[in-house]
Order: sequence, then C-alpha cells, then structure tokens
Amino acid sequence: MRLVLHLLRREQQDVVAFADSLSELVKNVRYCHVCHNISDEETCSICANPARDHATVCVVETIQDVMAIEATHQYRGTYHVLGGVISPMDGIGPQDLEVESLVERVKAGGIGEVILALSPTMEGDTTSFYIYRKLAATPVNVTTLARGVAQNDQLHYTDEVTLGRSIVDRKPFKA
Amino acid sequence: MRLVLHLLRREQQDVVAFADSLSELVKNVRYCHVCHNISDEETCSICANPARDHATVCVVETIQDVMAIEATHQYRGTYHVLGGVISPMDGIGPQDLEVESLVERVKAGGIGEVILALSPTMEGDTTSFYIYRKLAATPVNVTTLARGVAQNDQLHYTDEVTLGRSIVDRKPFKA
Repeated sequence: MRLVLHLLRREQQDVVAFADSLSELVKNVRYCHVCHNISDEETCSICANPARDHATVCVVETIQDVMAIEATHQYRGTYHVLGGVISPMDGIGPQDLEVESLVERVKAGGIGEVILALSPTMEGDTTSFYIYRKLAATPVNVTTLARGVAQNDQLHYTDEVTLGRSIVDRKPFKA
Repeated sequence: MRLVLHLLRREQQDVVAFADSLSELVKNVRYCHVCHNISDEETCSICANPARDHATVCVVETIQDVMAIEATHQYRGTYHVLGGVISPMDGIGPQDLEVESLVERVKAGGIGEVILALSPTMEGDTTSFYIYRKLAATPVNVTTLARGVAQNDQLHYTDEVTLGRSIVDRKPFKA
C-alpha cells in the first residue's frame, strides 16, 4: 500500500521507467553457473576475475553473505553459494542446496582449500559437517571461520560457548 | 526509595539481619593479594587451589570477567584482575591499574603464558598493547582471545571487522 501510494504521487513517466527496470531485473538477472552468485553474465564477475585466487572456495549460504564477506576486503578467493542450509524443520535437505555442484567443482581439480563460512548455528554446523563428510574422499583442505569474541563486545556479555571457544582457541598476541 | 519502602514492610528482625549482613560484607570482603580477585581470605580460592594451572595467568578487567570465564568451564589457569582498562577520557592511566603487580608476578618466575582477555574495544586493545610492551623483556608467552563470529550469529549481520578477522584467522574444520 505504501509503495502504491508513493508511486501514485510520482510522475507517470518515472513509474513506467521503474516498472521497465523491474521487468529487466527479472529477465536479465542470472546466476553464475560456477558459484551460483547473482550475475549479469553466465559467469559472475568474481569467477571471471583472473586476479582472484581460484584455488580457494568460500562456501556461503546466500548472496548476502557474499556481499558481507566482499565488504570486509579480507578475502581474495572465489565463492560457492549453497542457497541455504540443511533444515529438516523447514523441509530443506541437501538435495535442495548446491552441495552436489560443490563436490563436482572440487573433484574437477584445481581447488586446494574449501572454507566453510556458514552461520555458526545448529543448521549451519550440521550443513558444514555434511559437506565435510562429502569432501572427505578428496584431498582438499576444509577450513572454517574463526569463532570468538566480536569486535567492541564487552567480555562479560559474551555468551558462554563463544567465550569458552575464544579462550581455548587463543592466539599469540600480535602488536 | 523502593528499597526503603520494601524494608519497612518486612519484619523488623529481618531488616536488622540484612543490615548486619551488609556490614559483614563490607568488613570481610577482601581482595586476593596475588590476583586481586574478590576473596574471603588473603589468597582467593582460585590462587589457593593446587589443581589449577599456576603457570598460566589470564589478565581480565573486572571480577565479573573472572566469573564469566569461570562459567565457561574451559579454563584451568589463574587470573590477574586489572581493575579496568587504560582510558585517558576517564582519566584512567596504567598507574591506576594492577599492571605493575602483574609485571612483578611474571618477573618472580613460574609463569609460562599470560593470556590478555580484555574487551576487544579501543581501550582494551590499548591496554593489551601496553601490557605486551611491559612484558616484552620477560620470556613469557603473551596470547590473546580468538576473535571471530559468535555462536548463533547470522553471518551477514556480523560487523565487517569481526567477519574479516574470522576469515583471515580461519582454522581447519574439526568434525
């Protein structure tokens, strides 16, 4: 309703242009055939970029996660978008996700490391474990995100599991 | 006001007992002469416990942090309570904290690792760096808490700095 009322207040030609853009969006948006990220082309700009490290694949749930990781400017490898996590409660199994295409990508060779960057929740951990088992027969290194205290958190407000993990996984202090 | 009105509704003897407990609290609570944690005795129950690892000292800001870390059941070493962090804005310098006593504790020997478990804020990082420099002349290993995504967080809601750090510090996947 708010959108419609707003559009009625705008110039007619603006609304038509907006409607055309929406049609274009739906018609032209495609998904990268390699990593399943959003793309204009058959291969997305990350997979097509020779400056990226194609031997490292970061497995994420959604396109938003790709955007979040790109925004950190800390990662120069490629991605693989699963399209969700295994969640029996929601009726989502491995066959609904891009797991098989990941395994095929790894089996095709040239990949040295698969980073499992799924949400640190029950569903994310289950999915990570499933993929880890699927990749066990391949020689690829499977890694996962560091867990610990978040920047600017107060220590005594951090949940017990995360705080415990951050102590067990402590690292040499770097100045 | 709420406390006073509540006390007026209670039996007189209960209130007297409560007042006595408060006096006892203030009179009897002491601070451990080793780690400055709260204690009934001259030495707190953690420092006096021979089952704890006395070669590892975890440096924290407050007594609440000791409680938070104890609640994780992941740490068997001892502590050193600084009493805060360096904060020029609040007029708190190193001389207001238990830094000198930490350095003396390390110099006295028998300590192999100092874990800097301060809040991952600007002030906490500044204090960590200050202590790191102070301990540079000693052979002790200085470590710090792992930083990364927190248990049950959604990945794309994690702040950029933490997410970036969790990718750079990624670890082998453990099933």
